[in-house]
Amino acid sequence: MIVNRQPWKVLDSEIVFDHPWYKLRQDRVQLPNGRIIDDYVVEEKKDIVFIFPVTADHKVVLVNQYKHGCREFLLEIPGGVFDPAHEQPEAAAKRELMEETGFRAEALIPLGMVYDDPSKDTSKTYLYLAENVEKTGEQQLDITEDIEIILADIREIYPKIINGEIRVCNSISGIFYALDHLGYIQHSGVKTNWNDQ
Amino acid sequence: MIVNRQPWKVLDSEIVFDHPWYKLRQDRVQLPNGRIIDDYVVEEKKDIVFIFPVTADHKVVLVNQYKHGCREFLLEIPGGVFDPAHEQPEAAAKRELMEETGFRAEALIPLGMVYDDPSKDTSKTYLYLAENVEKTGEQQLDITEDIEIILADIREIYPKIINGEIRVCNSISGIFYALDHLGYIQHSGVKTNWNDQ
Repeated sequence: MIVNRQPWKVLDSEIVFDHPWYKLRQDRVQLPNGRIIDDYVVEEKKDIVFIFPVTADHKVVLVNQYKHGCREFLLEIPGGVFDPAHEQPEAAAKRELMEETGFRAEALIPLGMVYDDPSKDTSKTYLYLAENVEKTGEQQLDITEDIEIILADIREIYPKIINGEIRVCNSISGIFYALDHLGYIQHSGVKTNWNDQ
Repeated sequence: MIVNRQPWKVLDSEIVFDHPWYKLRQDRVQLPNGRIIDDYVVEEKKDIVFIFPVTADHKVVLVNQYKHGCREFLLEIPGGVFDPAHEQPEAAAKRELMEETGFRAEALIPLGMVYDDPSKDTSKTYLYLAENVEKTGEQQLDITEDIEIILADIREIYPKIINGEIRVCNSISGIFYALDHLGYIQHSGVKTNWNDQ
């Protein structure tokens, strides 16, 4: 059981790998029990947005692209990285949606802030729902991006998670919050009579 | 739209940062459009297991601990890293559950394999459901770990995601699959009459 709920004390800190896409910081930290760790490495990562974009006729705009870390093509909701020092998460979400898909979101509903890998990196992931999105432009892709846009009926999204067609954790999280918000999933734990289970 | 669904060709590869907890590989890659990128960095990460452990009386075993990347205390399902060259994911899941909580799982139900950050790291995350877990031992923690065990009624888990109390993507994903498998969440998309929506 936790005796002391203090964050670790950072005694010293230096950047040990500095690349435009990857920046590692090594901290010398003191734990609440007094123990010192000389080389706790964390990735200084920018923040992330993901959007669950739905058209007026209940289609969800998904993206399918190659991911070099796992060397597979993966189906996800649109999203990307942004620098919180220079952009607000909501603006980043609208920009990423437009760049990756050419769809415009008028208004965004915030679904929450989640973490991807909170032990090892510093980034926050902001999740949004965008209703009534419309195709008003063309994709503007980075040189490493080659994104296929897939429109799927909103009723097909939950089964795509269960069958593993959608299998990236931050997409699953965004979809979970969005489908809950829109009333497509119901929780039988607290809403119904427990004795009926 | 994707013209060529080939993975990127790796022309050359070297380890550019090598630490026991962090290993970065830099690839020189050729994209399907012929373009060459000299410095695509990925993290060579071990694989991960997460377990949704439920006791016979419908309590879920959760863990609460400090995470230095985001500098917060976070509530999660138990899990951890393992080396797939030396351990099977199912054995790793049972071991991590015992080490972090002292609870023993007799049998595991595989819920799926998901990715955390498939652009930037190589790891696979295996999700398991463990029913009828029992406290048979004591925690055996790493020096950086100070884990509080929290038993929560299974009916409280979904609300904890919606209210943000549980906010780590791989925990959310594991919980989503487990609650679906156990019948605690229902999807009204394909199962009910669409016209009633």
